[in-house]
Amino acid sequence: MISFAEAYNLVLDHSQNYGTETVSIKKAIGRVLADDIYADRDFPPFDRATKDGIAINYNAIENGRVAFDIKAIVAAGQRTYKFLEEDHCVEIMTGAVVPYEADTVVMYEDVTIEHGIANLNKNAQRGQNIHDKGSDRKKGELVINKDTKITAAEVGVLAAVGKSNVEVKKLPSIAVISTGNELVEVEDHPLPHQIRKSNSYTLFAALNEERIEPLLLHLSDDKDMIRQKLSYVIQEMDVLLLSGGVSKGKFDFIPKVLEELGVEKIFHGVLQRPGKPFWFGVYKDTNSLIFSFPGNPISTFANYHIYFKHWLQKSLGLPIPKIEVFLEEGIAIEGSMTRFLGVKTRWVNGLLRANLVKDNNSGDLTSLSRSDGFIKLTPREVPYAIDEKVSFLSTRSLI
Amino acid sequence: MISFAEAYNLVLDHSQNYGTETVSIKKAIGRVLADDIYADRDFPPFDRATKDGIAINYNAIENGRVAFDIKAIVAAGQRTYKFLEEDHCVEIMTGAVVPYEADTVVMYEDVTIEHGIANLNKNAQRGQNIHDKGSDRKKGELVINKDTKITAAEVGVLAAVGKSNVEVKKLPSIAVISTGNELVEVEDHPLPHQIRKSNSYTLFAALNEERIEPLLLHLSDDKDMIRQKLSYVIQEMDVLLLSGGVSKGKFDFIPKVLEELGVEKIFHGVLQRPGKPFWFGVYKDTNSLIFSFPGNPISTFANYHIYFKHWLQKSLGLPIPKIEVFLEEGIAIEGSMTRFLGVKTRWVNGLLRANLVKDNNSGDLTSLSRSDGFIKLTPREVPYAIDEKVSFLSTRSLI
Repeated sequence: MISFAEAYNLVLDHSQNYGTETVSIKKAIGRVLADDIYADRDFPPFDRATKDGIAINYNAIENGRVAFDIKAIVAAGQRTYKFLEEDHCVEIMTGAVVPYEADTVVMYEDVTIEHGIANLNKNAQRGQNIHDKGSDRKKGELVINKDTKITAAEVGVLAAVGKSNVEVKKLPSIAVISTGNELVEVEDHPLPHQIRKSNSYTLFAALNEERIEPLLLHLSDDKDMIRQKLSYVIQEMDVLLLSGGVSKGKFDFIPKVLEELGVEKIFHGVLQRPGKPFWFGVYKDTNSLIFSFPGNPISTFANYHIYFKHWLQKSLGLPIPKIEVFLEEGIAIEGSMTRFLGVKTRWVNGLLRANLVKDNNSGDLTSLSRSDGFIKLTPREVPYAIDEKVSFLSTRSLI
Repeated sequence: MISFAEAYNLVLDHSQNYGTETVSIKKAIGRVLADDIYADRDFPPFDRATKDGIAINYNAIENGRVAFDIKAIVAAGQRTYKFLEEDHCVEIMTGAVVPYEADTVVMYEDVTIEHGIANLNKNAQRGQNIHDKGSDRKKGELVINKDTKITAAEVGVLAAVGKSNVEVKKLPSIAVISTGNELVEVEDHPLPHQIRKSNSYTLFAALNEERIEPLLLHLSDDKDMIRQKLSYVIQEMDVLLLSGGVSKGKFDFIPKVLEELGVEKIFHGVLQRPGKPFWFGVYKDTNSLIFSFPGNPISTFANYHIYFKHWLQKSLGLPIPKIEVFLEEGIAIEGSMTRFLGVKTRWVNGLLRANLVKDNNSGDLTSLSRSDGFIKLTPREVPYAIDEKVSFLSTRSLI
């Protein structure tokens, strides 16, 4: 059995590049930019009034002028006003093009208008209330780096530079495969010795958050059937996420079948709790990766976040966040396993503090819904102390 | 003009309840539970083996027995084994029902099996490796509170208790309305005096993150057309999010038209920057709410997060997070406006620290994609100091 650090590095070493695809800007949210994005024009594209008022040439003020003939009203969306004399002005609206000869906008609040003449009530400064052409970004300048996760902010920038279609990183195709004869469908009334599938739904939902719509499959504990279905899936899908069937039981056929099918085992078993019987392999013909998690819901959920999610982030070129939290209680770790313990967090004086979620130490699924994530504790002789800072892996969005 | 605190409280006082609807468990992620969820059976529903090995009655060990006749192999998903004598055992697989007469599971690693007899190699403890019926949750116990946002963890629990359909809070129907003759579509090549719509796309994307698919509309600066379209939309939609047309310009018809249509103005203008010309109102006939944001992209983006998002969270029964960050630089605030400044954050020694994003003070849209959110600074004489803790509003997921 290998250490957690070895297992983690082996999984991340198998990150892959699934290429790129074009999506509509309306479907781009949550995806990862595949290209650098450049300004296709100056921003703003013209000298833009930032207040409603009058546009003038400041030289006139320097020459002592305080009253200006109003020659026109210029609205946003109108072509630039053709020509402005020094003793003239135009009324101008926010967002409109400032006439070429003007260099100053005085807002209505500082002007009195009577009989087509605007009188200044207040000193102005040359250049005020104008957002100069190209002052935010020049045409050709980088506006968003590739490998950026697209949020609402990026969608706004993409729209502004005319990217109605966006090149994004392609997501892997994924099969989520449950195993075990004890499992029945969610809508079924299970017999006393049966339980409903939950891991498939958990993984389906978690992948949906990553914008991945997985294929859902179930394998009964029948070796021939398992071989038949898996042989198809490893050809067709980039990633298989299995839960169950990887322990030492008589009907835990998965590792054996995978190896018979030519899947190369990278490791089986990690010195960690939960999630110890994790099997990880690669099918070299197609470069398909197999994450075979233990069937216990806590183990599957933990290993999904510990391994798969970071693997996916690395594969998409995203940084892997390193978050730490402060313990609200001391914790002694026995044995040699790296431990992942469910915690509920709260903000105290700007610090994220973590309380253990009691889970009966049994794989109590409901504890996941009381947790915000897992703390990672490396085995050591000295107990972890209250207020100590430890590594944290969130399982729901906290900020 | 009212203070930021007044405006914020007025908006939140208008939170609404849009009722509930039923969605399939596969569509439930990101939604908010409308009902408490109870265990429909004991969890686990039977005494469940947590290891592969043999199931025995510990009394036999107390009576000095170390060898047991293997009577059967019990797999997960099989009915309980009918009867077990004290000198017998069954091989049992993880997830299988422990026979009624057994109370202890010894894993294969601690057993030698020869000729149908299992010999214990190691001391056992009564009750080991059995996950007792009902020990996680008893039938009828609460497993998830209503008003919980459904993440992958909750989906797993919902699946386990058989909720193939889930009662969730209904989301408001929303129209996102851009205004201004200067705006053209993203796919258009704008003329020099035109710019592409970006606010509509930003709001569309932000609402998508909340699982809301808004109606997108555009209004030209034509008062009759504005009246005609708005009169329809306020009848049909729960919320209108407008951007632009609320300044003091000659073509800023929106507030006037809304009031003519019978929309009650709650306020217009807030002592805040950006986002000052924010107009907020309610159409009492249908209880439709109108959030009319300034057209500047930073203002719209900030006010969406400051007002609308918290209003939505309150309307759905979700808590409004209070996050604080530590300043990496001192900041002096002049004037009487509450300020919202774009910041980039980073984790340093477990603290979330914030650096100002330089934005040319102009509504530079691209600054949004360099920011993680806004800090909120209340006006005061003394500058905000480096390392000081201030209120933070995230605009992308940070944990």
